[in-house]
Amino acid sequence: MSISLNTKLLIKGGKVVNDDQSFYADVYVEDGIIKQVGNNLTVPNDVHIIDATGKLVMPGGIDTHTHMQYPCMGTIAVDDFYTGTRAALAGGTTMIIDFVLDKKGVSLLEAYHKWRSWADPQVCCDYSLHVVITWWSDQVKEEMSSLVADHGVNSFKMFMAYKDRLMLEDDELYQAYVHIRKTGALAQMHAENGAVIYYEQKRMHDLGILGPEGHELCRGPDVESEAVTRCIMIANIVNCPVYIVHCMTIPSADAISRARREGKVVFGEPISASFTNDTERCWHKCWRHAAGHIVGPPNRYDHGVTPEHLIKLLANGDLECTGSDNTSHNGAEKAAGKDDFSKIPNGVNGVEDRMSVFWEKGVASGWMDENRFVAVTSTNAAKVFNLYPRKGIIAVGSDADIVIWDPEATRTISAKTHHQAVDFNIFEGMVCHGVTVCTISRGKVVYQNGKFNVTPGHGKFIPRKPFAPYVYNRVLKRETSRKPIPVQREPYDATKALYICRLVCKH
Amino acid sequence: MSISLNTKLLIKGGKVVNDDQSFYADVYVEDGIIKQVGNNLTVPNDVHIIDATGKLVMPGGIDTHTHMQYPCMGTIAVDDFYTGTRAALAGGTTMIIDFVLDKKGVSLLEAYHKWRSWADPQVCCDYSLHVVITWWSDQVKEEMSSLVADHGVNSFKMFMAYKDRLMLEDDELYQAYVHIRKTGALAQMHAENGAVIYYEQKRMHDLGILGPEGHELCRGPDVESEAVTRCIMIANIVNCPVYIVHCMTIPSADAISRARREGKVVFGEPISASFTNDTERCWHKCWRHAAGHIVGPPNRYDHGVTPEHLIKLLANGDLECTGSDNTSHNGAEKAAGKDDFSKIPNGVNGVEDRMSVFWEKGVASGWMDENRFVAVTSTNAAKVFNLYPRKGIIAVGSDADIVIWDPEATRTISAKTHHQAVDFNIFEGMVCHGVTVCTISRGKVVYQNGKFNVTPGHGKFIPRKPFAPYVYNRVLKRETSRKPIPVQREPYDATKALYICRLVCKH
Amino acid sequence: MSISLNTKLLIKGGKVVNDDQSFYADVYVEDGIIKQVGNNLTVPNDVHIIDATGKLVMPGGIDTHTHMQYPCMGTIAVDDFYTGTRAALAGGTTMIIDFVLDKKGVSLLEAYHKWRSWADPQVCCDYSLHVVITWWSDQVKEEMSSLVADHGVNSFKMFMAYKDRLMLEDDELYQAYVHIRKTGALAQMHAENGAVIYYEQKRMHDLGILGPEGHELCRGPDVESEAVTRCIMIANIVNCPVYIVHCMTIPSADAISRARREGKVVFGEPISASFTNDTERCWHKCWRHAAGHIVGPPNRYDHGVTPEHLIKLLANGDLECTGSDNTSHNGAEKAAGKDDFSKIPNGVNGVEDRMSVFWEKGVASGWMDENRFVAVTSTNAAKVFNLYPRKGIIAVGSDADIVIWDPEATRTISAKTHHQAVDFNIFEGMVCHGVTVCTISRGKVVYQNGKFNVTPGHGKFIPRKPFAPYVYNRVLKRETSRKPIPVQREPYDATKALYICRLVCKH
Amino acid sequence: MSISLNTKLLIKGGKVVNDDQSFYADVYVEDGIIKQVGNNLTVPNDVHIIDATGKLVMPGGIDTHTHMQYPCMGTIAVDDFYTGTRAALAGGTTMIIDFVLDKKGVSLLEAYHKWRSWADPQVCCDYSLHVVITWWSDQVKEEMSSLVADHGVNSFKMFMAYKDRLMLEDDELYQAYVHIRKTGALAQMHAENGAVIYYEQKRMHDLGILGPEGHELCRGPDVESEAVTRCIMIANIVNCPVYIVHCMTIPSADAISRARREGKVVFGEPISASFTNDTERCWHKCWRHAAGHIVGPPNRYDHGVTPEHLIKLLANGDLECTGSDNTSHNGAEKAAGKDDFSKIPNGVNGVEDRMSVFWEKGVASGWMDENRFVAVTSTNAAKVFNLYPRKGIIAVGSDADIVIWDPEATRTISAKTHHQAVDFNIFEGMVCHGVTVCTISRGKVVYQNGKFNVTPGHGKFIPRKPFAPYVYNRVLKRETSRKPIPVQREPYDATKALYICRLVCKH
Repeated sequence: MSISLNTKLLIKGGKVVNDDQSFYADVYVEDGIIKQVGNNLTVPNDVHIIDATGKLVMPGGIDTHTHMQYPCMGTIAVDDFYTGTRAALAGGTTMIIDFVLDKKGVSLLEAYHKWRSWADPQVCCDYSLHVVITWWSDQVKEEMSSLVADHGVNSFKMFMAYKDRLMLEDDELYQAYVHIRKTGALAQMHAENGAVIYYEQKRMHDLGILGPEGHELCRGPDVESEAVTRCIMIANIVNCPVYIVHCMTIPSADAISRARREGKVVFGEPISASFTNDTERCWHKCWRHAAGHIVGPPNRYDHGVTPEHLIKLLANGDLECTGSDNTSHNGAEKAAGKDDFSKIPNGVNGVEDRMSVFWEKGVASGWMDENRFVAVTSTNAAKVFNLYPRKGIIAVGSDADIVIWDPEATRTISAKTHHQAVDFNIFEGMVCHGVTVCTISRGKVVYQNGKFNVTPGHGKFIPRKPFAPYVYNRVLKRETSRKPIPVQREPYDATKALYICRLVCKH
Repeated sequence: MSISLNTKLLIKGGKVVNDDQSFYADVYVEDGIIKQVGNNLTVPNDVHIIDATGKLVMPGGIDTHTHMQYPCMGTIAVDDFYTGTRAALAGGTTMIIDFVLDKKGVSLLEAYHKWRSWADPQVCCDYSLHVVITWWSDQVKEEMSSLVADHGVNSFKMFMAYKDRLMLEDDELYQAYVHIRKTGALAQMHAENGAVIYYEQKRMHDLGILGPEGHELCRGPDVESEAVTRCIMIANIVNCPVYIVHCMTIPSADAISRARREGKVVFGEPISASFTNDTERCWHKCWRHAAGHIVGPPNRYDHGVTPEHLIKLLANGDLECTGSDNTSHNGAEKAAGKDDFSKIPNGVNGVEDRMSVFWEKGVASGWMDENRFVAVTSTNAAKVFNLYPRKGIIAVGSDADIVIWDPEATRTISAKTHHQAVDFNIFEGMVCHGVTVCTISRGKVVYQNGKFNVTPGHGKFIPRKPFAPYVYNRVLKRETSRKPIPVQREPYDATKALYICRLVCKH
Repeated sequence: MSISLNTKLLIKGGKVVNDDQSFYADVYVEDGIIKQVGNNLTVPNDVHIIDATGKLVMPGGIDTHTHMQYPCMGTIAVDDFYTGTRAALAGGTTMIIDFVLDKKGVSLLEAYHKWRSWADPQVCCDYSLHVVITWWSDQVKEEMSSLVADHGVNSFKMFMAYKDRLMLEDDELYQAYVHIRKTGALAQMHAENGAVIYYEQKRMHDLGILGPEGHELCRGPDVESEAVTRCIMIANIVNCPVYIVHCMTIPSADAISRARREGKVVFGEPISASFTNDTERCWHKCWRHAAGHIVGPPNRYDHGVTPEHLIKLLANGDLECTGSDNTSHNGAEKAAGKDDFSKIPNGVNGVEDRMSVFWEKGVASGWMDENRFVAVTSTNAAKVFNLYPRKGIIAVGSDADIVIWDPEATRTISAKTHHQAVDFNIFEGMVCHGVTVCTISRGKVVYQNGKFNVTPGHGKFIPRKPFAPYVYNRVLKRETSRKPIPVQREPYDATKALYICRLVCKH
Repeated sequence: MSISLNTKLLIKGGKVVNDDQSFYADVYVEDGIIKQVGNNLTVPNDVHIIDATGKLVMPGGIDTHTHMQYPCMGTIAVDDFYTGTRAALAGGTTMIIDFVLDKKGVSLLEAYHKWRSWADPQVCCDYSLHVVITWWSDQVKEEMSSLVADHGVNSFKMFMAYKDRLMLEDDELYQAYVHIRKTGALAQMHAENGAVIYYEQKRMHDLGILGPEGHELCRGPDVESEAVTRCIMIANIVNCPVYIVHCMTIPSADAISRARREGKVVFGEPISASFTNDTERCWHKCWRHAAGHIVGPPNRYDHGVTPEHLIKLLANGDLECTGSDNTSHNGAEKAAGKDDFSKIPNGVNGVEDRMSVFWEKGVASGWMDENRFVAVTSTNAAKVFNLYPRKGIIAVGSDADIVIWDPEATRTISAKTHHQAVDFNIFEGMVCHGVTVCTISRGKVVYQNGKFNVTPGHGKFIPRKPFAPYVYNRVLKRETSRKPIPVQREPYDATKALYICRLVCKH
């Protein structure tokens, strides 16, 4: 019986919320696909009916930025592809895009397959993979081409920080952008100036600053926004679209905003961690709390000024997608850096709470409407990463990745009650409007009224094609419309130079 | 036979371009409505087939700003509701929104019915009406309510210029915004500082400047951007959404852009006239040419810097819709101001060429893709003015207002060949990519391969409901989320003041 | 003996701090004038020597904005020309510029003489007078000319707020600017949108908000910055220099900054009240405290973000002078508005503490150096109001208005210890570096080590000439360099129009 | 007799123009020093009198940026320390600051002495030397210290461009800034992204673009402004003041402007080359003309928009000093790059014409007054490079480096008539108001009415001390006021963590 329940679903009485409009309609799902959207639908008898009266029926969230079970600084992130994606479902997220991120020198293809081998048997929702370029060589170039052509990857992330470990230099970025542009992929940037951070860490140590506040002190807002400015410039020069992951500061967001208004093809991703409920963050008097907020780039301690700015730019369209950068470490792991902030494993939670946090800060506060919420939590990600309209919309033919959302109910976020494996929650105590009533993944009810009905491996890897139209249509047009044309001149002739000048230039 | 041709249409082989995506699909139309969109459609035998292979199938354009047969400064605009809307169809525009604009003291309802009586029997495409508030009184207020409730009007325009004739003062604007907010309509603003223009005209006369350049000299960019800043401020204070018509300058566009990033609900409308092909405009040595470019606010003479800025902000989302401000006057009419620029009837053409001009400047140049083009020429107008999804999208259930567009073909704009009645064209000589192959209005082929098949009155008045969700969802939420709350205090007691201060304030 | 002490002074061993440089030098003063500046000076035997070793010897402060004994809303400001200027001396300020501010309809000349009659017998330091234009007529125009020509006035203030009482409309401003430009004076603007404030007060009353917080709620930052933008635009159009008094918000300061970078002749004046020590201000739970912070425009409650922005722009040169807007009311007077914020007499203290507050926030914090401090507290005021180099510099020939300043000492500001008459101090508890050791006015030691030695009428009225070079050199040059020139054209001839067009325009 | 003429000079009847004010006064000079400034001076009988009636008497110009006889790309700049400084005098410039610029690996001290040996016997006006850091090592560090302590150098320039030849990487910049800050010197930056230029040159070659336009195509405005943003960030982090040489683009100038408003200690230097008279510049159809305009960063081809922006920011105070970047090459030398733009020796003239060009574009156009002109051409340079008040002011005790200037006369710039050695002039045909009547260097009349009276070696090397107060007062204050302070915490104790958290954090 449970099979039939899950293969034929009718969501009745809800308000469908897409990014362009909301309307009252029933949604009929079969075999994991949305088959009908409308009123008075004709459906089979054996359909399982979900009453969504008074609720919103929205495309499931897409978290553009996770690091499940990421091996980092000697530990492994405690939320793995199972607990992480399971928690995601509870929060209304039905797809994550994680990062293949291995060491310098490691084959990208090998790394890719390693991550696939971790994720495929574990994931409770659909997922896809960005691949990180941590070094540069002909082999890397070829493997990038192969990943795009044969492995469903259309986005490559690079680090401008983490000198000696992950960071690429400007000349490597230039070459990488040229190649990414050719493959039709998207360049994703962790934008912080790694050289500066490297020396600033030393300076903080010299000043006797060893606690978590040192993390923020050595990577101020400008360290981030400088790198944002730089990578946008380089990418734009070679006509490569660029996507700034975890945009955390006002000057970074403004740099993106300015670049967009100059016509550059750039996208910015704020993350839920910017909206942490704890105003002290890594300045907290309790080490565990302070360490619990360590994420790179840091979230900012400024009386809500930065979060409000970010939410406004997200509402307005200057920022595009939302991720969580979920990389969760328990206290015992964080303690590796108890005597030196630079040894604290970076990372915070968010995969479960992202949707609620953005609803509260965006919709409940009146900055954005429910349609823009769908855009920034789901649809835009689908467009940018070329999953649209398979993902990101409630429409006939689309995957039945759906969240039924109660916009009036509230919940209080707490590590005591969350579904993630980690023992800490940066949103502890935050009261959010917007609660997941029911989550449907691939046409199956996987979470309802607080209960899961999902097994590891339920989710699937979703390959993505290059040349996403949303990103590349302008890019391709510019290839021709902006091609530089040489000035036609007589060859230089020293003996005639004066004469020619007089003739042509009238001096 | 022609009847059947027009009631059942199959557009085959084209690429459907909506604002969110493009896809190859056939479109089946019946009784003026899009009935099916997809491949391998099942259609009746008596369908009329239009081959759109290699072409784009887009929602017909919506020109948000026209003044057909407008009685202005002693003359009447030469393009009337017939010639104007007919020319619109040739350009791929299938709906206009015109302005009811009568004198101070005239009943809004009377004026509305006058305009309806002019337009209804004449229009060749669908239309709707904005109503201009040129004075303020209880009667005006009541008539506004009636227009919203019973006459399909959801947008009211006000002038900050044209002192003594049309201009409202700040206190009138404040009150009007309060009332517009209550009715759920949209405030539209002609934003120029009328007091300044009034005195600057005098100053120009005193300086002996009587030619058309005087028009621009007395209303510089700041005269416009100041008013933009002012009306956004006032409207935002009372939580009334505001729409800036004909945004013509960089500082105006930037003011809108800034306001949006601050979370204000404001929309900006650039117009085709900003992209005139004639770099001299009202500085032209030939009086007729100079006078032909007179429009208020003026288009700007600055080597293309302003047009490029406007198109970039339109591409980026800072500006929303596009209009033409079509108000066309022949040379003989313009000549009323041959000795004094302030007597030249204002207005230029554009209703026919708007789509081509924005395609050329926006899409062919690589600033925006075809989907953003649809957004700014059609979909956004439908959303802002609450016509979506009836208008502005190729989707099942929507009106069959469709343009079939050849993106590679070019045409050269000229008064000699255009379909408007006026004897001048501000885009004379401009070569545009993007040519209308076929226009379908209400499911009828009204223009194809250069030939019309339409009669006056074919178009219909389209009533619009208030509280457009695209505009008002945020507005309504803010009504509660930002309601100011009084501070709770002990009553002031002079005898105890010191004590209380010490107790509470610790001074 | 005391006479000789006061007519021949030698200030020894100090560091002279001017706006362009600091240097160690002795300063010799005779008959109220600085006679020598240098080392190893030859001075008379009967000189009175002041040891300034380890101290700074700076030009006395000029407070550009005071309202002593101002009759306001039924009361009179409690600090009059005696107590106010005496307190000024204690704070290191040796000149104030007060405002002649009478009702609509009152002769400006009469008002001017009234203020002179109040001030002349009372002032303890030099002073000058701005005159406020509260209405517009030919009489006003003529009296303005007379004030400039014969009465030493070169600055006229106008209000854009206080509708019906003080406010001028745009057309009046335009005409006033034209006339001010002709007289060579400076337009000073209280920039807030009066129409909006008028209606917003009503709205707050309707919402049941009657406490002091209502004051801020009905005049948000945009209400101020809009007016700033507007008056700069109008003044610039007619080439009239403009000075924004009490610039209180980030958008206002940014509007000034933008205008300056566009080449407009505009000056901005932040005031000490923006740096109040009380973060709750008019939101304070104690009514007396809240009411004590009422000033228009309001200082802003935003965690120090606004003050820091203002001090940075002041440090950078975007803002020019500093005033206090000193208008002090005791609790009993403030209580007039205990049931309605709109009846609370506006005004705060500052004439005594301005120098310390700007030193603490500017110099001690590292934003500006001591030379910039002298510029913004003294020299720039002297230049803008055409008192330079008589005032604003320690140089041979200048007035001996000098403050000897201890940059390392601190003092704690308190109503208990201040020298003003008022019973409240908005800086209560603020610890400031920078303490007045000795103040010299007109060559006389009037304050030393906490003790006064001054009598009412010691100070003098300082007349000011028009066409201050610092302000007007650019203005006058622009008069010619930007004069618009008419385009030379053949007269319009309807019969030949086509031919001419073809000939000239090649269409 | 000529000796006496030159040791005692009286400049009579002129208007003295300093950066703070203008006033009518005579100036008496003896032994190279200004001895008196005033009216009715008592002077010796054997004084040589210069009539300056109707003229301006200004501090001689200081050109902050020259490369006389610079060995560059296989050639040597044709204007050497003799012809270059002689031409400077004709233009009213009485001091240059040139660059010691040798190859990677060369001892800075050796290079310094080489440049001294070239300049000392040749210079016709006073000069000083910046030293360029082209590589990084302990030796460089030590030599920097020695240059500051013992050789009169207080400014070090670094290149972010010219990869492999001159460019420093971010980590080298960081370390250099730390060291410069310690020595009290000023960091000067050639700000362009060298990695990008390197690859863009290759790309242009691949596209078949080999002419001079390729120079501009591979180093667009963003390539410059990115580097400006980056170096300001890095320098500010370590509290090192930074000076951007040749600020050539709008986004660069805006980046500087923004940084200053954020309180950063940064200075910007526009150069005369931005105001070239030739709108085609390196796009010129004549190769010789195009090559003649090659300078790095390029001047911009945009209808005067960039020059106007730069002059406005210079007028407003956002930009500080003006140089010429004079590095002049004859046609025969430029021809080295006739087949490849990347081989064209970079450089343009300007040392002679800088003063006239900035007068014309700044003062004659009304953007700045004569006092601001003196500030930006002389005084600010003296302050920034710690030569004030020895240089940059007409005051008692200052060096008698004076230009007598006719503000109403005009001259037409031309290579045919200029005094530089080079055969080309980028200002050819520009008509400038503002003509040098007489130039006085070290108290000697060296140029008058078109005739020189100067011999090589007349000028002297001017050593400069570190910790210029104008630059460093804020920097030193910040050292203490912004020192980060560690958060005091209990040590982390895994067993108690929960308890502590509960206690402190109340979760």
